[in-house]
Amino acid sequence: MSTPTAETADATDPPRARRGRPGYDRAQVLEIAVRLFNEQGYDATSVAALAERLGLSKAALYHHFASKEQILQIALDDALSGLEAVLEDALADDRTAETQLVTVIEGAVGVLTSRLPQVTLLLRVHGNSDVERAALVRRRAFDQRVARLVEQAQREGALRADIRPSVTTRLLFGMINSIIEWYRPGHTSLRPEELARDVTLVVFDGLRAR
Amino acid sequence: MSTPTAETADATDPPRARRGRPGYDRAQVLEIAVRLFNEQGYDATSVAALAERLGLSKAALYHHFASKEQILQIALDDALSGLEAVLEDALADDRTAETQLVTVIEGAVGVLTSRLPQVTLLLRVHGNSDVERAALVRRRAFDQRVARLVEQAQREGALRADIRPSVTTRLLFGMINSIIEWYRPGHTSLRPEELARDVTLVVFDGLRAR
Repeated sequence: MSTPTAETADATDPPRARRGRPGYDRAQVLEIAVRLFNEQGYDATSVAALAERLGLSKAALYHHFASKEQILQIALDDALSGLEAVLEDALADDRTAETQLVTVIEGAVGVLTSRLPQVTLLLRVHGNSDVERAALVRRRAFDQRVARLVEQAQREGALRADIRPSVTTRLLFGMINSIIEWYRPGHTSLRPEELARDVTLVVFDGLRAR
Repeated sequence: MSTPTAETADATDPPRARRGRPGYDRAQVLEIAVRLFNEQGYDATSVAALAERLGLSKAALYHHFASKEQILQIALDDALSGLEAVLEDALADDRTAETQLVTVIEGAVGVLTSRLPQVTLLLRVHGNSDVERAALVRRRAFDQRVARLVEQAQREGALRADIRPSVTTRLLFGMINSIIEWYRPGHTSLRPEELARDVTLVVFDGLRAR
């Protein structure tokens, strides 16, 4: 796809023509596109199918984004930037690894629930292109930094030492990431902050009544 | 696909011809097929691609199974029967809901690790055919029975009551099911029984050192 990027389109087209159909701005096109990728798979979704879902011509779609891959890249970056910011913020404070880990877990649940389509896309990426491989590298780097935080909290004596740190991290992420499979913010009375609290309760204190 | 079922093929073909290529029995064909479904997606895998992976002709493949869908059905039934048997065994004993729940969790981890390809296939089913929909109905019935066990354990006072039972069950299964994403029995020194113990430790007692 060698059509102009969204930026050059912005510069040359009048604002009304740029919007394609009234009511869709760039962010909305992105969200609808990402939901379609999640439904059908990114590779299986054609630009024609995407334009049809949006009720736009392909030309109008290209006013918003240079290519299908640009949409993928922006969505993956959105999810990853959110997770990375959570980690940076947590590590910036001079506290115990345990406190930092609680902050990371609550923040990660916050990113998952507020950017559900983008994180879903990220978790399903298989590395079929440079864009996907770059996202996987960033995701692994994030995972490894959290794994080091878990190890540090174990060394501090805050976390139990009878489970391998690598297994602890896997189970932790397994629980957090599974949220994308069932949590739908608009369809439940469970608020994202409650869910974040529930996850940290289970992870740190377990289900047993005390 | 209207080729003879495996049963009629068994009756009419001599045992040597039935095996197709030496070294592949029916169970092995099933396992290789299920792994290919997991790699490429069931719908995207053609019988031709399956025969190629096995190094068999399509005719030889049809000596083992009547259709691609029969392989799917057997694999899904294998995963579901394992999980259902775990639940039946746990519930048959006249013990507390908490003890039964521990048994179910350890047993479920056992089924996941011993039938990893089949359970992976089950967890990725989307209900695109009658076979898939029937499997989803059985999976939901299993989930609901475990959810009732969680509620019962909460009422008994064994589990904390400040998290909704539905959320507890979702997080519990999220952690257990995530095992299919990373656990590879042959590539780790972590034995399935250790993993089952780790999961119950995290779920019931949490990560916090005491």
